[in-house]
Amino acid sequence: MGDVGRIPVGIVGASGYGGVQLVRLLMDHPRLELAYLGGESSAGKPFSDLYPHLGHCVQQVVEPLDLEKIADRCEVVFLSLPNGLAHKMAPTLLAKGCKVLDLSADYRFTDLSTYTSWYGGDRTDQTIAETAVYGLPELYRDRIAEAQLVGCPGCYPTASLLGLSPLLKQGLVIPETAIIDAKSGTSGGGRQAKVGMLLAEADNTFAAYNVGGRHRHTPEIEQVCSDLAGHEVLIQFTPHLVPMVRGILATIYATLRDPGLVREDLLTIYNAFYRNAPWVRVLPSGTYPQTKWAAGTNLCYIGVEVDPRTDRVIVMSAIDNLMKGQAGQAIQCVNIMMGWDETLGLPQLAFYP
Amino acid sequence: MGDVGRIPVGIVGASGYGGVQLVRLLMDHPRLELAYLGGESSAGKPFSDLYPHLGHCVQQVVEPLDLEKIADRCEVVFLSLPNGLAHKMAPTLLAKGCKVLDLSADYRFTDLSTYTSWYGGDRTDQTIAETAVYGLPELYRDRIAEAQLVGCPGCYPTASLLGLSPLLKQGLVIPETAIIDAKSGTSGGGRQAKVGMLLAEADNTFAAYNVGGRHRHTPEIEQVCSDLAGHEVLIQFTPHLVPMVRGILATIYATLRDPGLVREDLLTIYNAFYRNAPWVRVLPSGTYPQTKWAAGTNLCYIGVEVDPRTDRVIVMSAIDNLMKGQAGQAIQCVNIMMGWDETLGLPQLAFYP
Amino acid sequence: MGDVGRIPVGIVGASGYGGVQLVRLLMDHPRLELAYLGGESSAGKPFSDLYPHLGHCVQQVVEPLDLEKIADRCEVVFLSLPNGLAHKMAPTLLAKGCKVLDLSADYRFTDLSTYTSWYGGDRTDQTIAETAVYGLPELYRDRIAEAQLVGCPGCYPTASLLGLSPLLKQGLVIPETAIIDAKSGTSGGGRQAKVGMLLAEADNTFAAYNVGGRHRHTPEIEQVCSDLAGHEVLIQFTPHLVPMVRGILATIYATLRDPGLVREDLLTIYNAFYRNAPWVRVLPSGTYPQTKWAAGTNLCYIGVEVDPRTDRVIVMSAIDNLMKGQAGQAIQCVNIMMGWDETLGLPQLAFYP
Amino acid sequence: MGDVGRIPVGIVGASGYGGVQLVRLLMDHPRLELAYLGGESSAGKPFSDLYPHLGHCVQQVVEPLDLEKIADRCEVVFLSLPNGLAHKMAPTLLAKGCKVLDLSADYRFTDLSTYTSWYGGDRTDQTIAETAVYGLPELYRDRIAEAQLVGCPGCYPTASLLGLSPLLKQGLVIPETAIIDAKSGTSGGGRQAKVGMLLAEADNTFAAYNVGGRHRHTPEIEQVCSDLAGHEVLIQFTPHLVPMVRGILATIYATLRDPGLVREDLLTIYNAFYRNAPWVRVLPSGTYPQTKWAAGTNLCYIGVEVDPRTDRVIVMSAIDNLMKGQAGQAIQCVNIMMGWDETLGLPQLAFYP
Repeated sequence: MGDVGRIPVGIVGASGYGGVQLVRLLMDHPRLELAYLGGESSAGKPFSDLYPHLGHCVQQVVEPLDLEKIADRCEVVFLSLPNGLAHKMAPTLLAKGCKVLDLSADYRFTDLSTYTSWYGGDRTDQTIAETAVYGLPELYRDRIAEAQLVGCPGCYPTASLLGLSPLLKQGLVIPETAIIDAKSGTSGGGRQAKVGMLLAEADNTFAAYNVGGRHRHTPEIEQVCSDLAGHEVLIQFTPHLVPMVRGILATIYATLRDPGLVREDLLTIYNAFYRNAPWVRVLPSGTYPQTKWAAGTNLCYIGVEVDPRTDRVIVMSAIDNLMKGQAGQAIQCVNIMMGWDETLGLPQLAFYP
Repeated sequence: MGDVGRIPVGIVGASGYGGVQLVRLLMDHPRLELAYLGGESSAGKPFSDLYPHLGHCVQQVVEPLDLEKIADRCEVVFLSLPNGLAHKMAPTLLAKGCKVLDLSADYRFTDLSTYTSWYGGDRTDQTIAETAVYGLPELYRDRIAEAQLVGCPGCYPTASLLGLSPLLKQGLVIPETAIIDAKSGTSGGGRQAKVGMLLAEADNTFAAYNVGGRHRHTPEIEQVCSDLAGHEVLIQFTPHLVPMVRGILATIYATLRDPGLVREDLLTIYNAFYRNAPWVRVLPSGTYPQTKWAAGTNLCYIGVEVDPRTDRVIVMSAIDNLMKGQAGQAIQCVNIMMGWDETLGLPQLAFYP
Repeated sequence: MGDVGRIPVGIVGASGYGGVQLVRLLMDHPRLELAYLGGESSAGKPFSDLYPHLGHCVQQVVEPLDLEKIADRCEVVFLSLPNGLAHKMAPTLLAKGCKVLDLSADYRFTDLSTYTSWYGGDRTDQTIAETAVYGLPELYRDRIAEAQLVGCPGCYPTASLLGLSPLLKQGLVIPETAIIDAKSGTSGGGRQAKVGMLLAEADNTFAAYNVGGRHRHTPEIEQVCSDLAGHEVLIQFTPHLVPMVRGILATIYATLRDPGLVREDLLTIYNAFYRNAPWVRVLPSGTYPQTKWAAGTNLCYIGVEVDPRTDRVIVMSAIDNLMKGQAGQAIQCVNIMMGWDETLGLPQLAFYP
Repeated sequence: MGDVGRIPVGIVGASGYGGVQLVRLLMDHPRLELAYLGGESSAGKPFSDLYPHLGHCVQQVVEPLDLEKIADRCEVVFLSLPNGLAHKMAPTLLAKGCKVLDLSADYRFTDLSTYTSWYGGDRTDQTIAETAVYGLPELYRDRIAEAQLVGCPGCYPTASLLGLSPLLKQGLVIPETAIIDAKSGTSGGGRQAKVGMLLAEADNTFAAYNVGGRHRHTPEIEQVCSDLAGHEVLIQFTPHLVPMVRGILATIYATLRDPGLVREDLLTIYNAFYRNAPWVRVLPSGTYPQTKWAAGTNLCYIGVEVDPRTDRVIVMSAIDNLMKGQAGQAIQCVNIMMGWDETLGLPQLAFYP
């Protein structure tokens, strides 16, 4: 592959966990090349000041934000910024012909009033926002292939939707009964210093947060579920914090329409649904996923169980929140947008044990 | 209190986590005194060989099992053994006049066929088993006060039932909609060497197990829920393993019969329900429990939330699995059986952070 | 003990880990009573806003700092503040007759120029500073009993000095060969939000910091070692961060003056040295301490080993950094200052497992 | 590289952490191909029964041990077995022309009496053992290139020797003053079920073990140090267990012969020593390694510090114990033995955070 050219890529927002994962993945990608690394707080510093362990591989200095320069230099740009900033930058980059992947929530919603009611701020860019495709390839692969602007899914929605979609799409469950009890490692909270995320606070403990449909990933999950169900659906979503760095497990409950369905029926359906999805592994009957199995990979592991006593299906969906839940999935989308194999350059062997 | 006599107490099964917690609690209890410490595998060894950090407080040598001797020496006996052994010892101890608290599953079921269908074995002791009281004081305080034989609840049932009982008892929710998504630290698995419980395996990961109503605590939860609801109820119960040593959080979902109820209504109901329960703390509106808040104490922390969009109540119930979930609750039961204040000698200030 | 009066006690600096440990210990102390709880950043808030799990036991509101009011109300005052503040408050409290225990570094040094060269700032209070006693009871019990002002030791110096003192005091090792390789849980860094202390950063990793004699606890250790050795001694001290919340282990190396000494000789010497020290447990031959054994207690566990091949003694000293390393030791000092048993009200049974 | 043939490789001892790391590394290696996977306890089972997360990549069934078959099929064989077994198999494989890499201690010692005095058993294979090369490429690259039999170093010796070698080789320190205080994650203990390695036991705690030169890695370290120093050297080596899965940090102390040397001098010397060592990264002045920086890679990170007050150098050396400390280094040796670039197929970007 040595004689094939590499595509120049830019990252805006280099210092967070999304940024460093993207940098890492680009180092190993055979067709992408890091051409720009920009950030505000760390502009002017070598990237290895932020992450000394990458000093031997990443020589870049973090550059100040200059959209013209980025567009001149890059064909593809990842925006890895706090919510509310990407939609101020993306239009310029798009107009210059860049493909843009936004890792924030800015372009995840087809209806901007949903965005503003959950994230605040003003948005008058409905026209551009409507061109954005939700970057969950297992559901929207074809549209991603044609997209110039991709709104990359949140980490919880990725795990939740991959677990729930086959059931909703096939009409196997009553959508209103769906409950997603999700658990995440603390890296999901980002690299900002917060007391509650200190090891001394967050270790040896377990708790829920944003209970009762108050987490911002709720409308994102509901948007896709409604799309799949064909009518508006409300989903019960509860996030929890696990004393570990990486990984999300979503435990999903829903009542079967047809109580006669057994585990093996559902496994057949799941396997069929994900037949062409190289990053989803439906586990054998009776095996349930460990988040660790996905650590460092772009994989989503899915286990399916039926409780014949209650007529419920229980689906467990495990991902690495920084990979399939963030940076890995963004690269997967680029692979699709560029017409490459969607597994290109992405790790599939977990960091284990 | 120095001039009041202490009650001699025995522990059968000294080496596990239940045993060592009981020993520790007895050291600090003003009215109980450790008079016998027995075990099979460790008979003849000083207890401090098993737990060197207790060498300065516990001089006892683990004694071989001799029921006659135990009964001669002790007024109260804790049986802290694997399932299936207690019912072979308890009758002798009871006949000799001992009060017996069994920490295994042997005496948790009013119908022994439920026991044998989940735990196996033969049981022909229905008569004695029927005299056993389920040792959850917040529900069965009066009966515990009169009991000679107490079947101490499992750790998951304790957290689950304390969270769910007010809703069922008051008929506030549709029982069949109840889903308990429970998460436990790994000490719940005991002190047996198992590959899956090694730190190298169980750290940095999160997974469900016994999914689909396959965990043995399911019938125990259902027995009490059926009792409260007044008819047989099936409950969805899913346990998970958290990479931490101690603590259980049960996240409980149920659909409200009356969608008009708001969070504050439910908090009022919970506070009333637990008005005389010193070991249950209903948290203020909008506060959700951390398992760490209960660490080392006999407390159960409960947070209540309503999702007005879905008409569901979400209850979070947090305990220390080795305390309120095991040894602490057994001591609480003894306090009640002896007519003492049920908080006597039990820690209420968490090990924090 | 019910008819004996309780001594009113104040805490200045309520919000940090030192503060909350003190509060917790006071709740269980039979002779001390929390009469004042003051803080700057949290003044006006109920203490249970900071630590909701203490809501059922601690009703106090954090009060603004008012030295007059504190002195009026309290006989004993704990100053639990960042370095450099206590010496501005202590003189007023002392003049009013309070006994003062400072948990910062302000009163640890007999020579204030040592303080200012490591901690910065100006200090012109040499006269008052000279009245302060270093609050390590195992070495300075008699002086603490007479003191009005106690400079409580740092966490690392406590573990290090308890491990090393018998060797230096008896002249058994060459002082200049002493190397202290110390390891601490992250709660030692306090409750301030810092990126490096996030669980996502500090978990699953291990590193040294302030290597080469650059940690501020170095001069504190050297001051006492010099005192014991009878001449000025430089000690090699290297701290490390362990991915756990609590606990310090100091592994101490030194070359024996007399190569003929064996492990049992040294254990005899250690046991004699600590014969009257209820908070130090010298472990049996061949047993080495786990930090967990001390968790939640005021104990220091010491293991002693000799390598006859190298003529070195290796001492391992384990404490809970927030207890014997901080709040517990301060209470121990108060017990001594008040003429009580030094074990009064302090836990000696570890939170285990 | 597609048209270049792959070399068939066998692994004996598939079920442990060494085995699974080798399997994982072989999946990604461009020139090696897994041709045989053998084990005793798991013979007949699909490898994915042991490690379900590898089910999509590894189809092999674990085969019973048959040395003839292995030799027929493989050019290179990794023996990943408990100590004392490899020397019974290697001779047959060598006679058949295989290159053999032993991950146990069997071939690490030039003098078999050292082996038997630390590991027990009888060894009469001095002649074959003498042909073995110690597989630490940074010291013995040329000899490894010519070797047919490689004794791969232990995890602690790898970290220790990479940190200490430049000092000994250049005669910069007094060898007898060298103290290695080493800390390891619990995966170093292997995948055997042991009570002390349970998460419930080993989490939240820190302790030393095999103190006083009693760890079997001591003679291995001393053998190489003696080789470098030119005379027999005894080294103080103390291992500790860190509550984390992977990673070793060795903190190494030694007294400088020339007290005038400063940190920058030593960094220059280290950089020169490792100029051609792609897997060793000497960190910039004032930067100390985190074990996490090496996680999942074959890298060794080294930080160097001098304490001008004590004339000591302190070196910190960090590796992933399962990679550079075990499987990664074995692959590095194969790369060298085959005449390939020694970085071939080995990860150099850490799993971070």
